[in-house]
Amino acid sequence: MDQQQLMVQMALTAWNQQLKRMTDTFNSLSDEQLMQEVAPGKNRAIYLLGHMAAVHDRMAPLLGIGERQFPELDPIFISSPDKAVATLPDTATLRNAWAQANEALTNQLGSLSAEGWFQRHTQMTDEDFAKDPARNRLSVLMSRTSHIASHQGQLALIKK
Amino acid sequence: MDQQQLMVQMALTAWNQQLKRMTDTFNSLSDEQLMQEVAPGKNRAIYLLGHMAAVHDRMAPLLGIGERQFPELDPIFISSPDKAVATLPDTATLRNAWAQANEALTNQLGSLSAEGWFQRHTQMTDEDFAKDPARNRLSVLMSRTSHIASHQGQLALIKK
Repeated sequence: MDQQQLMVQMALTAWNQQLKRMTDTFNSLSDEQLMQEVAPGKNRAIYLLGHMAAVHDRMAPLLGIGERQFPELDPIFISSPDKAVATLPDTATLRNAWAQANEALTNQLGSLSAEGWFQRHTQMTDEDFAKDPARNRLSVLMSRTSHIASHQGQLALIKK
Repeated sequence: MDQQQLMVQMALTAWNQQLKRMTDTFNSLSDEQLMQEVAPGKNRAIYLLGHMAAVHDRMAPLLGIGERQFPELDPIFISSPDKAVATLPDTATLRNAWAQANEALTNQLGSLSAEGWFQRHTQMTDEDFAKDPARNRLSVLMSRTSHIASHQGQLALIKK
C-alpha cells in the first residue's frame, strides 16, 4: 500500500467510525426521544437528525462526485435554526433521509481513487488550490468527521 | 511538499483548529460558568476542563515523544466520572494545566518528522503495527481531534 492509499484509509476509517456511532445513536432514540432537546433551550435531536442528513446529502456535490437527493432539507435544517420552522418532516422521513444520504455517499466516496482524494473540491478554484493543496477532498472528509463528533457529543446527553 | 508532509499538515491544521476553538471556549467561561453542567445531570464544564487537560497531557507518552506533566489529574478526570471525587483542583490550577499541557504538546508534536508521524505509537507492538500500519501516530492525532470536537459540542451548550 502506498502512502496516499494509507492516508485515505486512515481518514475513511475515522469517518466510518463516527458515522456508525451516530447512526447507532439515532437508531437507539425513540420517536419521542427525538423530540427532546439535548439541553434546555437547545437543539432537539430531531433537528440534529435532519441537519446531519442535509449536511451529508450535500457532500457529494461539494466533493464533485455526484448528485444529492434531499435539497428540500436545506431551508429547514441548514438555513434555519431549530424551532424556526413550525412543522418538520416526520421522523420516518428524516430517519430515511439519514440512511439514504449516507448509503449513496458511501458508494460515491468508494468511487474515488486515492489520487482523487487529494484533488480539489468544488468550492476551491484551481488558482486557490494551487496555493493551498491541503484544502482537498480529504480535508472535507476530516472536517465532516469532526462535525459528526461534535453533534454526537450533544446527542449523547439525551436522557433515555 | 511531498504527500506525507501534506497529510501531516492537513491533520495538524484540523487539530489546531479544534484546539483553538476549545481554548477559546474555556477562556470565555467564567469560574462560575465552569461549575455548570452541560445538560441536567451531565458533566460540569470544570470536569471537562480537567478531563481534556489530562487526555492531552497523556498524549506525549502515548505517542512516544516525551514526558507528561500532570499525572495527578488521571484519578480524578480519567478513572472517575464527574462528581465521584468530592473536591476538585481549583479552576486556576485546571486552567493552567490545560494551557501547560497543550503548550508542551505543541512543542513535542512539532519535533516529529513527517515520516515519524507514520510510525507506531507506544500502545502498538511492532508485530501489530506490521499488520495494520494505519494505526500510527497520525491516527492518534485524528482520533483526539474528534475527541475535542465531541466535548466542544457539549461545552457550546453552557448558558452564558
